[in-house]
Amino acid sequence: MISGKNYIGRQLKATGSNRYHTFNPLLNLENETTFIEATAEEVDEAVTLAGEAFEVYRLLSGPERAGFLRAIADEILALGDALIGMYCAESGLPEGRAQGERGRTIGQLHAFASLLEEGSWVEATIDPAQPEREPFPRADLRKMMRPLGPVAVFGASNFPLAFSTAGGDTASALAAGCPVILKSHPLHAGTSEMVASAIIKASVSLGMPDGVFSHLNSKGIETGQQLVAHEGIRAVGFTGSHRGGRALFDLAAQRKNPIPVFAEMGSVNPVVFLPGALERDAQSWASKYAASITLGSGQFCTNPGLLLGIKGKFLNGFLEQLTNAILSVSPASMLHPNIVSAFEKGKALAESQQNTRVAARYEQEVAPNYGRQLVLTVDGGTFLKNPLLHQEVFGPFALLVECADKEELEVVLGRLEGQLTGTIIGTEEELPLFNPVIRALEGRVGRLIFNGVPTGVEVAPAMQHGGPYPATTDSRFTSVGVHAIYRWVRPVSFQDCPDGLLPDALKNRNPLGILRMVDGIPTKSPL
Amino acid sequence: MISGKNYIGRQLKATGSNRYHTFNPLLNLENETTFIEATAEEVDEAVTLAGEAFEVYRLLSGPERAGFLRAIADEILALGDALIGMYCAESGLPEGRAQGERGRTIGQLHAFASLLEEGSWVEATIDPAQPEREPFPRADLRKMMRPLGPVAVFGASNFPLAFSTAGGDTASALAAGCPVILKSHPLHAGTSEMVASAIIKASVSLGMPDGVFSHLNSKGIETGQQLVAHEGIRAVGFTGSHRGGRALFDLAAQRKNPIPVFAEMGSVNPVVFLPGALERDAQSWASKYAASITLGSGQFCTNPGLLLGIKGKFLNGFLEQLTNAILSVSPASMLHPNIVSAFEKGKALAESQQNTRVAARYEQEVAPNYGRQLVLTVDGGTFLKNPLLHQEVFGPFALLVECADKEELEVVLGRLEGQLTGTIIGTEEELPLFNPVIRALEGRVGRLIFNGVPTGVEVAPAMQHGGPYPATTDSRFTSVGVHAIYRWVRPVSFQDCPDGLLPDALKNRNPLGILRMVDGIPTKSPL
Repeated sequence: MISGKNYIGRQLKATGSNRYHTFNPLLNLENETTFIEATAEEVDEAVTLAGEAFEVYRLLSGPERAGFLRAIADEILALGDALIGMYCAESGLPEGRAQGERGRTIGQLHAFASLLEEGSWVEATIDPAQPEREPFPRADLRKMMRPLGPVAVFGASNFPLAFSTAGGDTASALAAGCPVILKSHPLHAGTSEMVASAIIKASVSLGMPDGVFSHLNSKGIETGQQLVAHEGIRAVGFTGSHRGGRALFDLAAQRKNPIPVFAEMGSVNPVVFLPGALERDAQSWASKYAASITLGSGQFCTNPGLLLGIKGKFLNGFLEQLTNAILSVSPASMLHPNIVSAFEKGKALAESQQNTRVAARYEQEVAPNYGRQLVLTVDGGTFLKNPLLHQEVFGPFALLVECADKEELEVVLGRLEGQLTGTIIGTEEELPLFNPVIRALEGRVGRLIFNGVPTGVEVAPAMQHGGPYPATTDSRFTSVGVHAIYRWVRPVSFQDCPDGLLPDALKNRNPLGILRMVDGIPTKSPL
Repeated sequence: MISGKNYIGRQLKATGSNRYHTFNPLLNLENETTFIEATAEEVDEAVTLAGEAFEVYRLLSGPERAGFLRAIADEILALGDALIGMYCAESGLPEGRAQGERGRTIGQLHAFASLLEEGSWVEATIDPAQPEREPFPRADLRKMMRPLGPVAVFGASNFPLAFSTAGGDTASALAAGCPVILKSHPLHAGTSEMVASAIIKASVSLGMPDGVFSHLNSKGIETGQQLVAHEGIRAVGFTGSHRGGRALFDLAAQRKNPIPVFAEMGSVNPVVFLPGALERDAQSWASKYAASITLGSGQFCTNPGLLLGIKGKFLNGFLEQLTNAILSVSPASMLHPNIVSAFEKGKALAESQQNTRVAARYEQEVAPNYGRQLVLTVDGGTFLKNPLLHQEVFGPFALLVECADKEELEVVLGRLEGQLTGTIIGTEEELPLFNPVIRALEGRVGRLIFNGVPTGVEVAPAMQHGGPYPATTDSRFTSVGVHAIYRWVRPVSFQDCPDGLLPDALKNRNPLGILRMVDGIPTKSPL
């Protein structure tokens, strides 16, 4: 069912000689298919095709692009159990997770399709001419969002479906009118090729221009680097490590023509536990956080890796409950032996730092590639002095920082780097008393959560999945929810354009029936 | 009336020793005041103050910030004729231009104030909780725009008021809730200090936090570099040369925590003349373009520096008319001897390129620092081969590219770099026949103009003053019009936040009465 080759537009090609296999962490064995890395010529060909496809694709109507997205969703579903099987074999994640993630992926495609069908997302803004204005007449100005051009998307290791081949980056870019060149993640190249085949099938059956989607295998970093540096690429979407994201950002910034890179690079997702909440509900929070820290073997970018509280009996009680709860969680397989070994190293490094103390360490024997949870504690003063303790340890790990008092807690929050999320656990009565804590956290995060857990990223318009650097390379955008489309578009103004030559969204009679700002007033009326 | 010192917050300081003067190009003499460049310590102090001010300023209500902007406008007007006199003495521009630009500056401040008072610009998006949803309940999510933090703004040489100290970058950043540190342009340091004093006066009288605005003198590049590299700066606004803008962009991208830079770096603003329009109206277009090319001595970022047409009698006729018209324009003073000498060099370099031909050269004697217009022609083939001919010559200059045919015209357009504007001059009958030309141009510009001139940038919501690199460093934003505010804000989501702790824009009862997206529906109703 899979070929191990690259889709250069609709064509399966594999003229290269670099080969690799994916790995089944549960069986602790390589999977069968041989994947052939794309050559420099194939990358170049894919970008050229994407540029040509763009000239056609960008002019398609919203409903036409929506039809494409819905067809992709259908073709992914049509892959049936084979896709789920491949997903599990390449990730070690359970079938339920695979199904849930497929549902999320399908849901995202349909959400962007609905956005396109409704049509108002283009932010049509019309300032009609004022020919009588003194001292100068005002021209007719009409502005709307237009696509940037071919986008390079990088599959994420930890979401083989929802943040990969037909995930949020691809769906939002295709929705925007941008062709996509997908660099598949080497950990799940087979899952990726299957999804790519679904996209290609949908594009052929709907007569989309060849090159609207290409799919490149790659094990090393060269293919990705070539893509990001390629003159024909106009933007980049990435979800992964800080090292990888920053390298692509740097490469894009150094181009003759720099291009935007949205790299989501994870974070430690600080959680502040206020004393009143711990007094009232320590056990309940302990069990929720034991589950959140270990969910998916801790391999989520919103995994709560940094817990903060104020020294005292309530925090001690909570820590005891958390220790009990997290040690009762059965470890699960991680995505790949390399990820397991990075996790082991990260834990050891954190543990070796001065003044850290082990609160909970899962010590029983586990199958190969399973991730064993660890919770450390450290005092606020030490944490402030040691930047290494601020870093993410990818996996089921958390560091609890015990602050001396409210003031130290504020200082610690003020020193944190940018984060995807920040969470505050507090009673309704005590929250207003910690307003500076809330404001300090808000200033550093994309999403501020009250009395919940950061894992579980809802796909909704009001979701912000982003945050100040180093959580992402541009805090002004999100990669989850329909607003993710704004990463790939730019406003274009049309001045005194004859009505017949205007895009439909800007025509006098508003043939699309969308909400527009006309002379500062939102309206669906014709002019 | 002016001190030559820096405003570090509200304090006038000048502990440095680097001194300079501005220059009166009409008198060909230095102006009197000695300006003292800010020291590294003063820069640092300004940024620290801005960071502290941000913690207060970001929490002010829209109307409070609006009041500040309106007070700034009033204080600028209160400077009266002294400001106009200083403007003219430092720029050589005529009084009418100074008054017009002051009006534009005031208008921008009021436009952002109105935006804040209306309030919907924060893009409040609410997805209410669905506690009954299966398999998981949905949390309550509410998102709105929040300010990034202190912004460094660079005054522009060619707009001492509207794109400088209280210009669009400053007004939009202050509107967003971001303190501003303004690096004044050395050509008009006196005008800049006067406007800064107006901002400081407004901030004191309204009790704004000290540090919400600082004003730094600088002649060299070090102050600006220090600012952009400073950890406390969160974004940068710049209008000026490609060299300057790119240098700041690079510096910002190389930071440990990269920050967004919106640099508007000008362009050649291609204008395509179609044969039908030239047949019908050659004289009228010639006189409009003679005026547009020489307006403000050609010192506008939307100056039409590149004209394109198809070889033939209509283009020949137009060129003859343009030559006559532009030679009858009296040259005017440029901003500074250095700008004049750069203009002279740029003209000479363009003229020395193979196959260029002089169509119109103003040769009469002029006063010192006057810019004498030049129009060159070249064939399409030569233009395609010589990248130097694609570069901007800042001043009253245009290059007419005579393409062999429609196909060559399309090829030429396809090779152009990103532009602020592109213009098409054509009759209603012929425009549809040149659809590929229109599409090619649209793909490269921020604003597409039909049958007009690119100079004259309306301040309106539908204006896009931006464009693909190298016109700007990020085509997804504009620096003119109220949407310029989106450069300085980022979305923040609040999840399950108690109503009392939500910003007013997100509270259930919609106390601000703004338009919000609730469950995907635009509404002003309470929840």
